[in-house]
Amino acid sequence: MKKYAIILAAGKGTRMKTELPKCAYPLLKKPMIAYIVENLYKSTVIDELITVVGHKKQVIKDILNSRVSYAYQEEQLGTGHAVMMCKDQVTEPGYTIILPGDMPLIDELVIKEAIVYHEKAKNDLTVVSTNLADPSGYGRIIKKNNQLEAIIEEKDATDKQKEINEVNTGIYIVDNKLLFSSLDKISNDNAQNEYYLTDIVKIIKKDNYKISTYLLKKSFKAMGINDLYALSQAESILRHEINKKFMRSGVAMINPDTITIGDNVLIEENVTVSPNTYITGNSVIKKNAKVGPSTEIHNSKIGENVTVKHSLIYNSEVKANSTVGPFAHLRDGAVIGENNRIGNFVEIKKSSTGDFFKASHLAYVGDAEIGNDVNFGCGSITVNYDGRNKYKTQIGNDVFVGCNANLIAPIIIDDNSTIAAGSTLDKNVPKDTLAIARSYQVNKENYFKNGKRYKDKK
Amino acid sequence: MKKYAIILAAGKGTRMKTELPKCAYPLLKKPMIAYIVENLYKSTVIDELITVVGHKKQVIKDILNSRVSYAYQEEQLGTGHAVMMCKDQVTEPGYTIILPGDMPLIDELVIKEAIVYHEKAKNDLTVVSTNLADPSGYGRIIKKNNQLEAIIEEKDATDKQKEINEVNTGIYIVDNKLLFSSLDKISNDNAQNEYYLTDIVKIIKKDNYKISTYLLKKSFKAMGINDLYALSQAESILRHEINKKFMRSGVAMINPDTITIGDNVLIEENVTVSPNTYITGNSVIKKNAKVGPSTEIHNSKIGENVTVKHSLIYNSEVKANSTVGPFAHLRDGAVIGENNRIGNFVEIKKSSTGDFFKASHLAYVGDAEIGNDVNFGCGSITVNYDGRNKYKTQIGNDVFVGCNANLIAPIIIDDNSTIAAGSTLDKNVPKDTLAIARSYQVNKENYFKNGKRYKDKK
Amino acid sequence: MKKYAIILAAGKGTRMKTELPKCAYPLLKKPMIAYIVENLYKSTVIDELITVVGHKKQVIKDILNSRVSYAYQEEQLGTGHAVMMCKDQVTEPGYTIILPGDMPLIDELVIKEAIVYHEKAKNDLTVVSTNLADPSGYGRIIKKNNQLEAIIEEKDATDKQKEINEVNTGIYIVDNKLLFSSLDKISNDNAQNEYYLTDIVKIIKKDNYKISTYLLKKSFKAMGINDLYALSQAESILRHEINKKFMRSGVAMINPDTITIGDNVLIEENVTVSPNTYITGNSVIKKNAKVGPSTEIHNSKIGENVTVKHSLIYNSEVKANSTVGPFAHLRDGAVIGENNRIGNFVEIKKSSTGDFFKASHLAYVGDAEIGNDVNFGCGSITVNYDGRNKYKTQIGNDVFVGCNANLIAPIIIDDNSTIAAGSTLDKNVPKDTLAIARSYQVNKENYFKNGKRYKDKK
Repeated sequence: MKKYAIILAAGKGTRMKTELPKCAYPLLKKPMIAYIVENLYKSTVIDELITVVGHKKQVIKDILNSRVSYAYQEEQLGTGHAVMMCKDQVTEPGYTIILPGDMPLIDELVIKEAIVYHEKAKNDLTVVSTNLADPSGYGRIIKKNNQLEAIIEEKDATDKQKEINEVNTGIYIVDNKLLFSSLDKISNDNAQNEYYLTDIVKIIKKDNYKISTYLLKKSFKAMGINDLYALSQAESILRHEINKKFMRSGVAMINPDTITIGDNVLIEENVTVSPNTYITGNSVIKKNAKVGPSTEIHNSKIGENVTVKHSLIYNSEVKANSTVGPFAHLRDGAVIGENNRIGNFVEIKKSSTGDFFKASHLAYVGDAEIGNDVNFGCGSITVNYDGRNKYKTQIGNDVFVGCNANLIAPIIIDDNSTIAAGSTLDKNVPKDTLAIARSYQVNKENYFKNGKRYKDKK
Repeated sequence: MKKYAIILAAGKGTRMKTELPKCAYPLLKKPMIAYIVENLYKSTVIDELITVVGHKKQVIKDILNSRVSYAYQEEQLGTGHAVMMCKDQVTEPGYTIILPGDMPLIDELVIKEAIVYHEKAKNDLTVVSTNLADPSGYGRIIKKNNQLEAIIEEKDATDKQKEINEVNTGIYIVDNKLLFSSLDKISNDNAQNEYYLTDIVKIIKKDNYKISTYLLKKSFKAMGINDLYALSQAESILRHEINKKFMRSGVAMINPDTITIGDNVLIEENVTVSPNTYITGNSVIKKNAKVGPSTEIHNSKIGENVTVKHSLIYNSEVKANSTVGPFAHLRDGAVIGENNRIGNFVEIKKSSTGDFFKASHLAYVGDAEIGNDVNFGCGSITVNYDGRNKYKTQIGNDVFVGCNANLIAPIIIDDNSTIAAGSTLDKNVPKDTLAIARSYQVNKENYFKNGKRYKDKK
Repeated sequence: MKKYAIILAAGKGTRMKTELPKCAYPLLKKPMIAYIVENLYKSTVIDELITVVGHKKQVIKDILNSRVSYAYQEEQLGTGHAVMMCKDQVTEPGYTIILPGDMPLIDELVIKEAIVYHEKAKNDLTVVSTNLADPSGYGRIIKKNNQLEAIIEEKDATDKQKEINEVNTGIYIVDNKLLFSSLDKISNDNAQNEYYLTDIVKIIKKDNYKISTYLLKKSFKAMGINDLYALSQAESILRHEINKKFMRSGVAMINPDTITIGDNVLIEENVTVSPNTYITGNSVIKKNAKVGPSTEIHNSKIGENVTVKHSLIYNSEVKANSTVGPFAHLRDGAVIGENNRIGNFVEIKKSSTGDFFKASHLAYVGDAEIGNDVNFGCGSITVNYDGRNKYKTQIGNDVFVGCNANLIAPIIIDDNSTIAAGSTLDKNVPKDTLAIARSYQVNKENYFKNGKRYKDKK
């Protein structure tokens, strides 16, 4: 017996009013469809995942890659039609869970529990339902003697039926053979000229197969995303769940409503996150770190005991016991050693630093490899670009770079050297060397004797 | 028939505990009174707007200018007295809508619907009422056979009357002639010695004119602002409405509770706004832009496909396909061309840049005109100030300014020139020129042979 | 008669999953235990405070110092055992209020009112109770004829008893002699082998002493903090109370949910705080100041009419009429004079400035004393560190420091002098002097005649 999942991701999502196909739209920087697929994997109960793609299908495929196989729906002729497209791929006996691709809060628990229910009940078809305080717009679950009798769409419902709070979520678990035999019988004889997946319920019911509903208690998990406002509501739920999970596991958050953390971020114990902080991608924050306030970290690794504040760290790594910020930018490919101090108004890009590196203020380090115990003075710059190409800077150990120095790359500064403040260097510096390139100071005394030079006050 | 609006804006607002007169106090950087006036204009049903000013009247007049005419209330002797001050200006037959100036959430819909109701009902007086869960402190609407019988103030109400949830909002629509004839009859024979506008209701009622209430369903719209805490509550409602409107129209917002957007901002489709972002004034964000996180934009225009992060943009413009930030500051009067890159720790002030301008790090551009295809190296500065005056810098096309260069203005750098890194220039640079002003590098070898120069580690 | 308070702070707080002992954990940067102690002081009704410490006791003692006396509980054998440790210190007749150290929202009002109740009721024991919508997990208050009959723990409660909403907060007021005589009778004959303080209730009850409950109406005040999620909930309540208090007293807050203000901060009237701002420690914001957005201020004093935006101010002072930011950093020990302008990408550390000092862009001022009317040009740096030691810079009055100048400390720049842009100075500058250290500009014309120098576009 084989268990399939079919994820419906062919739609455009007109009400999103954006260029991406709906299921590709990001929720905390991760596409909605990726949540479904990751949660199906986490549930560990599905053998094969099939995603039905259509509108801008390549966008969906670039997100999911080989994590799923694909069925194509060239024209969007309804959800029933979308599932039909999978017929050639669902070949083994067993059952299939069908999920809309715009329900990112359906987690592995829901999937597992619905499938356990389906198996225990020995159902041919399980409809996942939920109770909504305001059911308007949804298909109502009609029951008789507590048995599923029919699903009635809003437009076909009587006033009495409209009062029913139990609705169809659009998630089904159904026997594979039965699924496609019943799909063969549905028609598009309706206002939209679409083939509705829901229509299989009455067909299967008529043939006296075993059907029942699995009631999802936490109805917010079945929230379908139709516009960007709904997306923000799902995001709000997800954000609170993520933050709560971290706080319960030993992460302190100050004003957590202002802290936005993505679904794939890992944060260890005894970390403090300060207000207005935004952490996304595959970021990892190791224990005892202090992050924020007003900090953004994306796809980066923050080591133990590291402090980061008022900074942006992007695709970079900061090793243990270092401090970053305020107002520092680790741009892309920065690998910061242990016990570093990256201070204010410092940018580091595609560079690695050894231990005990300091760039405390107003410096730019780009395309550089830097050894241990190096001090990069205030205003110092790796001049890595000549208008045509980028060049590398190599700095050894125990080097002191004076303030406002320009190191014109390609350049090598060897161990135990010092660059005098205000120097612009275009030649290598051997070890143990003092390199200097500056003019002598001239004091023109009594130059301003008869008046104030600097007048602009008050 | 002429339709007047009278807006009551003479009060001080003692409980605000601030220096501004209450109605001038800003809500998302726009004065409360401006909301009322703009919404009256949007309703398109009013012929003439009169604002009653008194306390610090010039502040209100500076906000509204010629958008309204003014009546003066020298002494604040009550709302009835305030309206009396308009007598000479309300000369034509017709009716008048009277609005407190501290109800910024009264929108054009409320105004329109109340007026439509007044006309349809052929009323002489319409009292706008609303239902409050906690009506304490408000004048209760007493009805008999569903007809307005009286408005009873809290202090005069019986316990039974205090249970009534329908209250007077303080908004009235009333026949012009009747308004002033009834105002002539009210007295200040009360604890505060004030003339209360409410008192016209019983006078008009007694004379058997046609009176009824228009019930405002969304009672929050009639929220009056008495202190800064109430202001923050109105702001919260307004912010959520503004954000929801944008999300519904195709603007993605990540953690929208941390995003603060003013009432006059325009944002096009397919824009993403990241957390902790603050956009105010007459800002326009064109489609496909990405704004935030931790960004402030005021009175500025952000072009298509522009990216702005961790930055402040004030009274400036950024043209299409450019990127700004992180930690950039467009100070005032910056006009950034297309495909620019304004990187970290860069300030641009009163300057224009051509296309493909780059100032990627640690630069200051002030009072400059810059052509196309110019690169402004890291640490480069337009030296625009000598302690007395500011001077201009002019840079042509295809110019490369090396790192940490100082361009002492007034200065002209002509096309296709290069400034060597570390140079301080005080003369113009003709086209096709390499300009250089620096000392030769001297390497004093073996200078530190017998010990480490740089000792300060661990 | 002597009134004691015993605060229970010996526990580890395993569910916090952090290294600090639970009661030392900060809430808005102030330890939980400090709230209790400060509020006991504010209540002015307690004669002597005793804190029971155990796990990492020194951490608690470093927080409270001599504000309390200490009792030691070497092994954590239960709350009853903890109180027993105070026996030698509670020697006078009178009564004792016993408080868990993890209830930071118990304010002076609760303390005062409970004690007034205890005295008026002439009780031997008062149990502070509260009503919880969800009482599960708490000891239920069992009453008979409205008299306290017993406290039944969740595990011992019948289904009927479990429905009772009134619960024990864990706060008691009890006669001193009776407290210790009843503690002598409790046993650790239970699942945890602990001595429970609650057990004194049934002992005292049995002996017919006068007992009753004081019902705390605002049950959130008795919230005990067991994990970091609960801490965030207490913080949320506290933050809203703090912000509301300030708004009611004339502080305008834009999007106050994003504004995080500590318990000991003082803010005067007519101040505006913009979004995403974080103010903590013993900070003081004087009237008419404007603070934020995206600003952090810790332990600092902001003078009248000062503007601070997008900046970090730490252990510093800004005097009246100055502006700071955006993107400025007053690091530690900065004392900024009046009418200063500290602009973008400027760091000031352990320095004082006179009046009318300006450092508008990209500057570093460290270990400096600066007079009045000084302009510090863009990119200028006090070179205060040679890799081994830090040195001082002294600047007189009326000094103009040109752009990208390096002042190599120790150095003295006397009154009415000017430093030319791009100069690196290592000698003192007498008064009235123009100091210059730079190379002449050479224009190599026609250098790029046959092609473009700067190619990297598009």
